[in-house]
Amino acid sequence: MVSEIPTSRSLPAGKKRATTLKDIAQVTQLSVSTVSRALANNSSIPESTRQRVVEVAEKLNYRPNAQARALRKSRTDTIGLIIPNIENPYFSALAAAIQSVARQAGVSTILSNSEENPEILSQTLDIMDDQRLDGIIVVPHMQSKDKVVELAARGVPIVLADRCFEDTSIPSVTSDPTPGMTEAFDLLCAADVHLGYLAGPQDTSTGRQRLEAFEKLCVDREITGASVFYGGYRQVSGYDGIKVLIEQGANAIIAGDSMMTIGALHAIHEMDLKIGKDLQIIGFDNNPTFRLQNPPLTIIDQHVQEMGKAAFGILQKLIDGETDQKSVLLPTSLEIHGSTAVSLKAFEKSRKANKKKKDKEASK
Amino acid sequence: MVSEIPTSRSLPAGKKRATTLKDIAQVTQLSVSTVSRALANNSSIPESTRQRVVEVAEKLNYRPNAQARALRKSRTDTIGLIIPNIENPYFSALAAAIQSVARQAGVSTILSNSEENPEILSQTLDIMDDQRLDGIIVVPHMQSKDKVVELAARGVPIVLADRCFEDTSIPSVTSDPTPGMTEAFDLLCAADVHLGYLAGPQDTSTGRQRLEAFEKLCVDREITGASVFYGGYRQVSGYDGIKVLIEQGANAIIAGDSMMTIGALHAIHEMDLKIGKDLQIIGFDNNPTFRLQNPPLTIIDQHVQEMGKAAFGILQKLIDGETDQKSVLLPTSLEIHGSTAVSLKAFEKSRKANKKKKDKEASK
Repeated sequence: MVSEIPTSRSLPAGKKRATTLKDIAQVTQLSVSTVSRALANNSSIPESTRQRVVEVAEKLNYRPNAQARALRKSRTDTIGLIIPNIENPYFSALAAAIQSVARQAGVSTILSNSEENPEILSQTLDIMDDQRLDGIIVVPHMQSKDKVVELAARGVPIVLADRCFEDTSIPSVTSDPTPGMTEAFDLLCAADVHLGYLAGPQDTSTGRQRLEAFEKLCVDREITGASVFYGGYRQVSGYDGIKVLIEQGANAIIAGDSMMTIGALHAIHEMDLKIGKDLQIIGFDNNPTFRLQNPPLTIIDQHVQEMGKAAFGILQKLIDGETDQKSVLLPTSLEIHGSTAVSLKAFEKSRKANKKKKDKEASK
Repeated sequence: MVSEIPTSRSLPAGKKRATTLKDIAQVTQLSVSTVSRALANNSSIPESTRQRVVEVAEKLNYRPNAQARALRKSRTDTIGLIIPNIENPYFSALAAAIQSVARQAGVSTILSNSEENPEILSQTLDIMDDQRLDGIIVVPHMQSKDKVVELAARGVPIVLADRCFEDTSIPSVTSDPTPGMTEAFDLLCAADVHLGYLAGPQDTSTGRQRLEAFEKLCVDREITGASVFYGGYRQVSGYDGIKVLIEQGANAIIAGDSMMTIGALHAIHEMDLKIGKDLQIIGFDNNPTFRLQNPPLTIIDQHVQEMGKAAFGILQKLIDGETDQKSVLLPTSLEIHGSTAVSLKAFEKSRKANKKKKDKEASK
């Protein structure tokens, strides 16, 4: 059954398109479906036929499409990642972190931006599902829960990042706002301040959990009269919100995310307020441009690199069939710079006084 | 031939996976390949059979995979977009602009980050080609030229954005640095300054063209002694470069891209220089955080929204079979803020003097 195998150059003249199953069928004198089954290692095809098909496919430089390849080696070595806003530096940093660790594992990442729109998110999940990616990391929207749960139930490896669905078993990697928020709260309250908080959208787990952490601290520390602005993860919320908070008398403000921090800074510059003097402010996320303020901003850091690494690690295990994955909660932390100078001075003074008091008591 | 069509609920118990062609074949008592051909509207299948297959497929909630769908309607309504650095705010703004206009046309965008690595870029082009996307918009790397040319030659609709290959017919959407650079140059030179330029990588068309525009202006305006730092599109280049330029005596500096502008600002803050007084600086790209400097930065604007719109417009025409598409060159422009206050004062003074002179001459 040995006959001369033409190279791709011997295809009909002018053919610049890629080799198809039909081309292989023509050369091997087999049907397209036999060629397809042979390339998919279907057991109904005799080994000698399979070998001949593979040989011709190689000679013709046949490149199987994504679907065929996925069926054959059952991996595409490609994962999907869906973030809600590519222009939010926190999410672009998360995407870069995930892509970098995936790349090191030989896995490509395709990314999609859901624009915080549950319809776009669902549609994107469908597209990614169709493309038979190895798995998906998604920053979910509350209203996309059913869709995500459906995919996970069908066995699609899926990990939630940044936000979670609190009552499902789908593993998530989120940050715990409490450690960073507590440090921020206690730092600001060392001085005599009127606290303000720019809260994120309450239909996201992050927006809710961060506000809860803030409110719990108000109760625990018996702070009354703090002002809260209920915003969204957009610059305009930070811009409008900080003006409202300042009008209510707030002079020590914590922003609930990157975008609101940027918006708040726009308002602060416009009002020509001196950061750290007229107004103390703590930003959210370790955005390099927050260090370009004069003075640089004190920030609550979510450690986005670690989050990306953890999310990809869990996804890899899911892909490898280890379906029993636990969610990961990473602590936030505070990074102190000049935007909280007044409170820092008071904080250090009171710390010294406390130490003195303790030393005195110890020496008694 | 009418028999009861089971719904998806009547599939064997415990079956949570998606309906496959095999399931439809089982119910219709046809072969998988007949079902497949029927769903692909293959003319070899009698219409009555096709109708029955479609009916069962609908009842079973069958969702064809991307490849099958692409074959059937010959469109996936999905395009690919490859940018070199997702953490560069210029590219994330370009991606958001393209995605937004694509979305309005009912087209989804999948995005990939090539990390300025030609190997990753080629691999990503392969993946996107395999996924039978309708077309690709790519910010290319010089070393990925052969790969891009090969894809375009095979008929894959492809548009270059931000950067171009100067000697190919692949359509591109790029910005013309000359108008913005000329305004920037003439503004700064209105005062007695030592010019400096932070140049981008010379293996990108943008890096080369912007430097050429700067150098041509030096010749045209007979400015000697301007300093140039040859950098890359990274923060560290801007950070290191501005220190070198300042050491060489430069006090009026134009940055060649977003990332170098951010890096330069880090160095300026570290050295505690007063922007607009100790040092005049013009940034590249309309990044919202550049307005958060005190004073805000004068910038060269590439009008990224327009670029995104133009790139998608050309891609759509290519997808529609209008293969003869011309490249688009969009003008840059200057947006003046406080970071060039010294030169602006001199510029306005000289303009007034010129006007006076002209009026005087006219009245003679």
